[in-house]
Amino acid sequence: MSAVGKRDTRKKKNAKAQSGEDVLIARYFKPIARHPGALGLIDDAALLGVPPGHELVLTADAIVGGVHFFNDDPADTVARKALRVNLSDLAAKGAKPAGFLLSLALPKGVGNSWLKAFARGLGADAKRFGCALLGGDTVYTPGPVMVSVTAIGTLPKGTMIRRTGAKVGDVVVVTGTIGDAALALRLRQDRGAAKRWALSAAMRKHLAGRYLVPEPRNALAEALRTHASGAMDVSDGLVGDLGKLCRASGVAASIEAVRVPLSGAARAALAAEPKLIDTILTGGDDFEVVASVPRGKLASLQAAARAAGVRLTEIGRVVTGKGVQFRASDGRAMTFAHGSFSHF
Amino acid sequence: MSAVGKRDTRKKKNAKAQSGEDVLIARYFKPIARHPGALGLIDDAALLGVPPGHELVLTADAIVGGVHFFNDDPADTVARKALRVNLSDLAAKGAKPAGFLLSLALPKGVGNSWLKAFARGLGADAKRFGCALLGGDTVYTPGPVMVSVTAIGTLPKGTMIRRTGAKVGDVVVVTGTIGDAALALRLRQDRGAAKRWALSAAMRKHLAGRYLVPEPRNALAEALRTHASGAMDVSDGLVGDLGKLCRASGVAASIEAVRVPLSGAARAALAAEPKLIDTILTGGDDFEVVASVPRGKLASLQAAARAAGVRLTEIGRVVTGKGVQFRASDGRAMTFAHGSFSHF
Repeated sequence: MSAVGKRDTRKKKNAKAQSGEDVLIARYFKPIARHPGALGLIDDAALLGVPPGHELVLTADAIVGGVHFFNDDPADTVARKALRVNLSDLAAKGAKPAGFLLSLALPKGVGNSWLKAFARGLGADAKRFGCALLGGDTVYTPGPVMVSVTAIGTLPKGTMIRRTGAKVGDVVVVTGTIGDAALALRLRQDRGAAKRWALSAAMRKHLAGRYLVPEPRNALAEALRTHASGAMDVSDGLVGDLGKLCRASGVAASIEAVRVPLSGAARAALAAEPKLIDTILTGGDDFEVVASVPRGKLASLQAAARAAGVRLTEIGRVVTGKGVQFRASDGRAMTFAHGSFSHF
Repeated sequence: MSAVGKRDTRKKKNAKAQSGEDVLIARYFKPIARHPGALGLIDDAALLGVPPGHELVLTADAIVGGVHFFNDDPADTVARKALRVNLSDLAAKGAKPAGFLLSLALPKGVGNSWLKAFARGLGADAKRFGCALLGGDTVYTPGPVMVSVTAIGTLPKGTMIRRTGAKVGDVVVVTGTIGDAALALRLRQDRGAAKRWALSAAMRKHLAGRYLVPEPRNALAEALRTHASGAMDVSDGLVGDLGKLCRASGVAASIEAVRVPLSGAARAALAAEPKLIDTILTGGDDFEVVASVPRGKLASLQAAARAAGVRLTEIGRVVTGKGVQFRASDGRAMTFAHGSFSHF
């Protein structure tokens, strides 16, 4: 498309030459678009078949520089985070990744080394999670880098795990550990925190990594699909997201805060500064899965989680009523300054 | 997700309240997400089935304020343009629209009236083109508004019109008229142009409308699919885009510039300022379809175009060699300062 401004970015070309965007795509993105339906990224659109008896699960999530990542974060981690926050949605819905489309908005001054690292990170994760780059768009922006991904998964018809399926009596489980990314963000915003929390270098590194590159639980997707009654990924904080799950299902949940799985680093920080429990439970960026599971299916799901190498922890149960109650170890109901993260 | 900055945008919430993003989605986008697979936009992902024997065509295109539209353009036209530039790709590939996902990045200060108009425009076009909102994401950005759409179409397996199918001897056709949007952009950037070109108010209005809201040729998609050997949509200028089609097909094209269909307004501007032929043929933002058609199928395609109410014009032919040659009425080969628009 033509430009309303920035005419200086328009390079002189003749009818035979490739445009700058074409060169950028051919150099950085074509090598990672290995899916046959990507058509080598030389067509206007991609092709995707769906296995008989299956349907598609579609999700779109965007990340923006200065909002969802720091503008000086390594380009490969920016790419991986952009893809993984979408893969996390597919995992929570029980879908198998099929491919993704990328819209990449780039400000002036983003150079070849940034693009090369971005494409390297993206390609590595596309391969690792079996989610190929199918197509997309690169545009100029006077704003920060924005990476918008639409991820597509498949599953047998009618088997998607909904937010609406949680039933009274179900057990509430969560994957991985909660709060690491939110604590990492605090560490980056508050120079004194690392000292106050008395974290080791290894602990700081663990937290930082969890913020930069979340670990979507796609390895557990199929087991969740056959065991969970309801699920969603935890992106805006466990308290708020579990609240959304319960609201959609017309139920409530009672959670024992002490059972919420924490990393060693998070436990250390919490011991030094107990009020961090608020950050841990409501900060977000976890990209773990919270699910409701009929009690009779819990042991089988736990076995599947062990086999997949994914930590899975029972943290409470689904009850009648409205809302989510987190109980401290002394039994009192906890309150939070921020129930769920929102930019609006 | 949590924020790296702008903590002031974080509103205090309790575990029972909906987040600001949820309210925004429920108020503005849920009413236009009528597809059952959108699940009322309350889940993490959408569901889409594919008819037996069919496959999906996927395309993603983003538009950015200050780059692809003016920041003071009406919100409803911004929404419609964002959807239509994607619908245009589906039309050129011969696919039937099935639905779309939206990633919307909003700066501070975008108010309810803007969002209401945006959703109204989006909803009207989603209905008109049978392309339902399936899901998406809204994020905060310190940059301009960015609207990123992934559109999904379906067609019988193996029937997508490729860029690679043009054959020597085929006729080159183009839909609608060329150059209107590029001239409209010039009018907005050059206050003196309207006077120099001696355009009537109706002509200026016609051009302005063509820039704000393109007219994707989805009504002709099925006929193109059964008649065209190769096609793409014209977004970066007829000269450059036809060049891409020819390069992908390993052929060349010979075009008679005088046959390129122009609106009355474009003809008037061109008469006043003959060098505008460069803007018309290379400016872009046309969102028409350029296609190669076997000569034996041309009459049938023209009949289908008449039935669909879409103007279809033969402008030249596919020949051996490389590149695209536009010939002036005196037979000389034309040269262009800009072969194809690119921001990079």
